[in-house]
Amino acid sequence: MLYTSESLENLIEELTKFPGIGRKTAQRIAMFILKQPKEEVEKLVKAIIDVKEKIKYCSICFNITETDPCPICSNPKRDKSTICVVEEPMDVLAIEKTNEYSGVYHVLGGVINPLEGIGPEDLKIKELISRISAGGVNEVIIALNPSVEGETTSMYVANLIKPFGVKVSRIARGLPIGTALEYADTATIVRAIENRTTL
Amino acid sequence: MLYTSESLENLIEELTKFPGIGRKTAQRIAMFILKQPKEEVEKLVKAIIDVKEKIKYCSICFNITETDPCPICSNPKRDKSTICVVEEPMDVLAIEKTNEYSGVYHVLGGVINPLEGIGPEDLKIKELISRISAGGVNEVIIALNPSVEGETTSMYVANLIKPFGVKVSRIARGLPIGTALEYADTATIVRAIENRTTL
Repeated sequence: MLYTSESLENLIEELTKFPGIGRKTAQRIAMFILKQPKEEVEKLVKAIIDVKEKIKYCSICFNITETDPCPICSNPKRDKSTICVVEEPMDVLAIEKTNEYSGVYHVLGGVINPLEGIGPEDLKIKELISRISAGGVNEVIIALNPSVEGETTSMYVANLIKPFGVKVSRIARGLPIGTALEYADTATIVRAIENRTTL
Repeated sequence: MLYTSESLENLIEELTKFPGIGRKTAQRIAMFILKQPKEEVEKLVKAIIDVKEKIKYCSICFNITETDPCPICSNPKRDKSTICVVEEPMDVLAIEKTNEYSGVYHVLGGVINPLEGIGPEDLKIKELISRISAGGVNEVIIALNPSVEGETTSMYVANLIKPFGVKVSRIARGLPIGTALEYADTATIVRAIENRTTL
């Protein structure tokens, strides 16, 4: 037992589960938490609990929200005839930041990835198709990440939508291959939406 | 308001307070927490609360511990006549991992840093001097970080200890094992030449 404290070791282990956090960073964060005043730690704990308790998924677009439907789906100014399909809620934020898109969204919750055992039935694809079949949709813009899995999922989704006679486009490959949508700069995202191509 | 959820934004803000965590990483961690099952999040919250509730500082060496005195200070096999002075509890762990040191420790809690308003009275220097004046100490090994503040604090502490006729040493500065001389910085090479040892 290297560590003088079991509870510290336990916290470090919990923190290393975070994405992008290695052992050393987890140690530094654990020491930081230990040194923080009690009120600050209580704020952190409350923030974590709040997120789990208050946030649910929008029953229309499956974006995260504290109200159902989400503020975007329930906004009368948003164009309900255009649906932008993304992987994760963070992608919605990335597109919203451009202030250039006035349609609505559909969050798939991931992409088809056989290696990780994620099939079409694990994503909100069925729900997207029912939104389209309910009518009133003119265009579906597919904005998945430019990864192999993203491309595959784009083609899969496009093929399911086409029979409804709805225009299907994909955001342009203005995004550099290998990066994630959430890290792209605003100008790149604007260009990618402008240059969307019909599938 | 860019974010669709106030509680998510709040959690991201709390997470960006962590050392070495920027906005993007905080977003990813917040999304990770959101996606985790309830039991996992409860484990994380419990680990944070436990660390704050169970961990105190050893009344002898000021290392973090769940028992007072800490396991090192209360271990009869440790050589109480040798005290290694370090900045932070993590430094104790770093030295313990070597399995080469059998003495005890004294954690200062930082270094003298006038720019950040940290003076000698903010550190456990008084407490170190009383341990030494109580007798039974043969050597004090100063193992502070090789920063300007670390050097200043080392000299300050050494000058306070010398009147007690106790041997004061400092861990060597030199080339780290496994690196090449051509990549070492000038200050390190100068110090390595100064501290050369006879073969």
